[in-house]
Amino acid sequence: MANFGGHAIPGTFFLLYGFWLTVKHVLQHYWRTTQPKGRQVMPPFFKRMEYIEGGFKIFASFVGIMVEQFVVDGPHAHLYDRENASWVKLMNWQHSTMYLFFGISGVALIASITIKQVPIGVDRLALSFALFVEGFLFVYHVHGREPLDAHLHSLLLFAVFAGSASTLLEVVIRNNILLELFRADMFMLQGSWFYQIGVVLYPLNGDKWDLKQHDNMMFVTMCFCWHLALSLLLVTCTAFIVWFTTTRCSTKRRDIEIGMRNTSSKTSSQKALLEESDEE
Amino acid sequence: MANFGGHAIPGTFFLLYGFWLTVKHVLQHYWRTTQPKGRQVMPPFFKRMEYIEGGFKIFASFVGIMVEQFVVDGPHAHLYDRENASWVKLMNWQHSTMYLFFGISGVALIASITIKQVPIGVDRLALSFALFVEGFLFVYHVHGREPLDAHLHSLLLFAVFAGSASTLLEVVIRNNILLELFRADMFMLQGSWFYQIGVVLYPLNGDKWDLKQHDNMMFVTMCFCWHLALSLLLVTCTAFIVWFTTTRCSTKRRDIEIGMRNTSSKTSSQKALLEESDEE
Amino acid sequence: MANFGGHAIPGTFFLLYGFWLTVKHVLQHYWRTTQPKGRQVMPPFFKRMEYIEGGFKIFASFVGIMVEQFVVDGPHAHLYDRENASWVKLMNWQHSTMYLFFGISGVALIASITIKQVPIGVDRLALSFALFVEGFLFVYHVHGREPLDAHLHSLLLFAVFAGSASTLLEVVIRNNILLELFRADMFMLQGSWFYQIGVVLYPLNGDKWDLKQHDNMMFVTMCFCWHLALSLLLVTCTAFIVWFTTTRCSTKRRDIEIGMRNTSSKTSSQKALLEESDEE
Amino acid sequence: MANFGGHAIPGTFFLLYGFWLTVKHVLQHYWRTTQPKGRQVMPPFFKRMEYIEGGFKIFASFVGIMVEQFVVDGPHAHLYDRENASWVKLMNWQHSTMYLFFGISGVALIASITIKQVPIGVDRLALSFALFVEGFLFVYHVHGREPLDAHLHSLLLFAVFAGSASTLLEVVIRNNILLELFRADMFMLQGSWFYQIGVVLYPLNGDKWDLKQHDNMMFVTMCFCWHLALSLLLVTCTAFIVWFTTTRCSTKRRDIEIGMRNTSSKTSSQKALLEESDEE
Repeated sequence: MANFGGHAIPGTFFLLYGFWLTVKHVLQHYWRTTQPKGRQVMPPFFKRMEYIEGGFKIFASFVGIMVEQFVVDGPHAHLYDRENASWVKLMNWQHSTMYLFFGISGVALIASITIKQVPIGVDRLALSFALFVEGFLFVYHVHGREPLDAHLHSLLLFAVFAGSASTLLEVVIRNNILLELFRADMFMLQGSWFYQIGVVLYPLNGDKWDLKQHDNMMFVTMCFCWHLALSLLLVTCTAFIVWFTTTRCSTKRRDIEIGMRNTSSKTSSQKALLEESDEE
Repeated sequence: MANFGGHAIPGTFFLLYGFWLTVKHVLQHYWRTTQPKGRQVMPPFFKRMEYIEGGFKIFASFVGIMVEQFVVDGPHAHLYDRENASWVKLMNWQHSTMYLFFGISGVALIASITIKQVPIGVDRLALSFALFVEGFLFVYHVHGREPLDAHLHSLLLFAVFAGSASTLLEVVIRNNILLELFRADMFMLQGSWFYQIGVVLYPLNGDKWDLKQHDNMMFVTMCFCWHLALSLLLVTCTAFIVWFTTTRCSTKRRDIEIGMRNTSSKTSSQKALLEESDEE
Repeated sequence: MANFGGHAIPGTFFLLYGFWLTVKHVLQHYWRTTQPKGRQVMPPFFKRMEYIEGGFKIFASFVGIMVEQFVVDGPHAHLYDRENASWVKLMNWQHSTMYLFFGISGVALIASITIKQVPIGVDRLALSFALFVEGFLFVYHVHGREPLDAHLHSLLLFAVFAGSASTLLEVVIRNNILLELFRADMFMLQGSWFYQIGVVLYPLNGDKWDLKQHDNMMFVTMCFCWHLALSLLLVTCTAFIVWFTTTRCSTKRRDIEIGMRNTSSKTSSQKALLEESDEE
Repeated sequence: MANFGGHAIPGTFFLLYGFWLTVKHVLQHYWRTTQPKGRQVMPPFFKRMEYIEGGFKIFASFVGIMVEQFVVDGPHAHLYDRENASWVKLMNWQHSTMYLFFGISGVALIASITIKQVPIGVDRLALSFALFVEGFLFVYHVHGREPLDAHLHSLLLFAVFAGSASTLLEVVIRNNILLELFRADMFMLQGSWFYQIGVVLYPLNGDKWDLKQHDNMMFVTMCFCWHLALSLLLVTCTAFIVWFTTTRCSTKRRDIEIGMRNTSSKTSSQKALLEESDEE
């Protein structure tokens, strides 16, 4: 991980996952608000999305663990070196542990879709655990580094623990679009901040940052707020585009199905449903 | 900001905003409690109030950012000075960032009124973000100052973070008059405390305070509690005057409309409605 | 306050207030669980209890402030001594501030009973503020003392802030007997711990405690848990006695009113009501 | 406690209690989800389970206190040694205090089953107190030890306080299977971590760990996450086995009772009930 690429890869993953979550939850929200009140069985399309997400998580975690373990300078599944009386490549083992918990959250997601007896909310609880473990290991990861390096990573922890807390809240408060988008936002923020860490610690143009200067720390704190504003903008735009496209498509389909019809009454009932589901 | 005026201006803004919030929420609460239970569409008068508030926030944030950037000794939109390898006027950039988030909260407020698809509660979430970012930047703002100076600013953080937390709670618990007045109170407290900071650090009569004396810190802590008591008094009085005036006016209007009528039965049903909406 | 009596007086007050709260809330809970579901208007007896409590709080706070100000070595309402450029008797001013907020909570209690328009929960919010301000001032009260002294006072803060948090929760969750008894318990714990502080710092038999020995701190921590157990026992016994007496009395009265009757059916419906009100 | 056995005994107790809780709550959840909606009186079988649990807790606490007090090198109920002016065996007194609170939680459990007037949730509140007191005493238990020793115990506190917080939440949110299993999981984690502490501080093969090496602390942090993953696996497997066995048994019984019948319709209604109870 000690290079720019090692921060860009997780950053890209988290950014894309944030996008995916935004799209998924806006679609689900659209479906919830346009359904009549009664029987709300999730359509197969959403189930398939969850299967893909869960499957990808399990696959990516497995690959991640394998790479961390069997890369050239990795621990190759050795934990303790008896000859030197020292632990072998603890950093790789830590990353493997993080991947393991994201893998568990993938298993929980698929189980909660497939098996009827699994209590609702297990997927969110497992995701909350995964984020907590990531943050928990990061806290000790940072120990004894330069001030700016430590500060950059501790700012990351804000995004990680805020995401973990909001996901835990979702176990109790279900189907709240704001909480769901907040989670997506925290993943995006995490992703973009990974890039920022890479840029500061391993600058591509070679200009080293002074890791002890106080002004740099002040700039970095402010920069975190800019990333937050940017991630909010990204989530808002993505949500708008998805909502707009979906409304346009479904309106067209209905028009075709039942010919020309005045849809103004539908829109107002949509609004009422929207408000009801938000107030729950 | 390093003078009395630089603290009096934001102080005045926050105080007035606290007053505005008190008036707005008491009016809304009056309207909620006097409406019959069924269809509760917000009347255009309240919508217009929200538009004015949102518009003012966006306008004030824009002006604030412009002033911070293009004031005589400002950064003039330059962030990094390559020649001296140093950041340009980070303090002004920090203030601009704070204004930016209050501007975002204004946009969210207007969007949540105008666009039907925007989930309810977005305005509160954005305001909570704005307060959080303000507090977040203040934490590092204070670094390395004199004890009394740091203490004064850390007391301000109590008002800021308490306001942020209660506003976040309003995303889930809607239309609770106590939470809404608590938010107004925290803005007033913040405003009056800005004045206090100005008075202590840049005394108008010229007597410098000893920034290291422990007794001064103890006094300042106690003084913060007095500001809290004062702001509670201000909110209570404002709420009482608004409620009293509104009741008087609306009673008169009804008397004129339908002639003389015994209003005692109305009052008791008002009370019942009041209790119901509070217990929700 | 720097003697045993100065800790015994607030200790006695808080202990008695804890008892009063237990009795009051058990009576209210009994009344809630035995009422039929429909119209639940608080009987005048409970209103009178609240008036007495509120009136006593205002009176006691007023007396407290007067005593702290005009006692022989008090500040006599002087805050700043210009000649010596120092604050006058800040400790007395701090105690006056604490009393002020308990007085405010008394005013809020009476207002919430008397005036119909006051939102429900204001009394709890004001009490929560009073406890918060007490703890808040204590935090800086303790600064720079001996380790055992500081530890004794910081343990007190657990009871104060736990009480403040649970009272704040009561603003949202109304009529939950467990929360109400928890509050009573925290007042009792605070009261008994004031006695303990007095005993340790100003021992009646004259044996001074070593304020720096680690074993003393460990004992004091454990002793706090014993006070907690004791206060739980006191609340439980008080609640049991009040409940038992009330049931006995009201059963007798009903028997007299409508002659001999089998009350077994009543008891089972009581139980059902009890469960319903707790699950809310 | 200063040997491997002294950590293995509480570890075994907590592990078994975690198993017991998993079995109990999965059975209760099965019963809740298969009952028709109306009258839900707890069957005598569950009452008996609670009696056994409560009785065992009281018995075990009593034995624990007696052993801690009257073991050969125990304090024999002496608290203060006047001759040496020192406390007698504070460690044993601390453990006795912890047992006392678990005993109180046993009493609360039995009382909440037996006595109709005891408010629902008292058992959870008492258990939350017991865990809080355990953690509270541990915080000062650890004072002044070697870094690795202190770190091992502070990791234990995560499990203890997380369990205390989730149990406190159960006072308000009843019958949520995820919260109940989380509690069981935290007890298992605590139990298995007690074993780990024993293994590290009093290794059975005699190889002493370096208590100051930073790599050891990093490994131990990661190892805690592995224990978490393991405990999640244990709870999941136990819950699955219990659920599977119960479903199989009750299906057989019904088949015998009413002859061959197509059970597919039952399964779908089970699912619906399951979802309803989880969403509550």
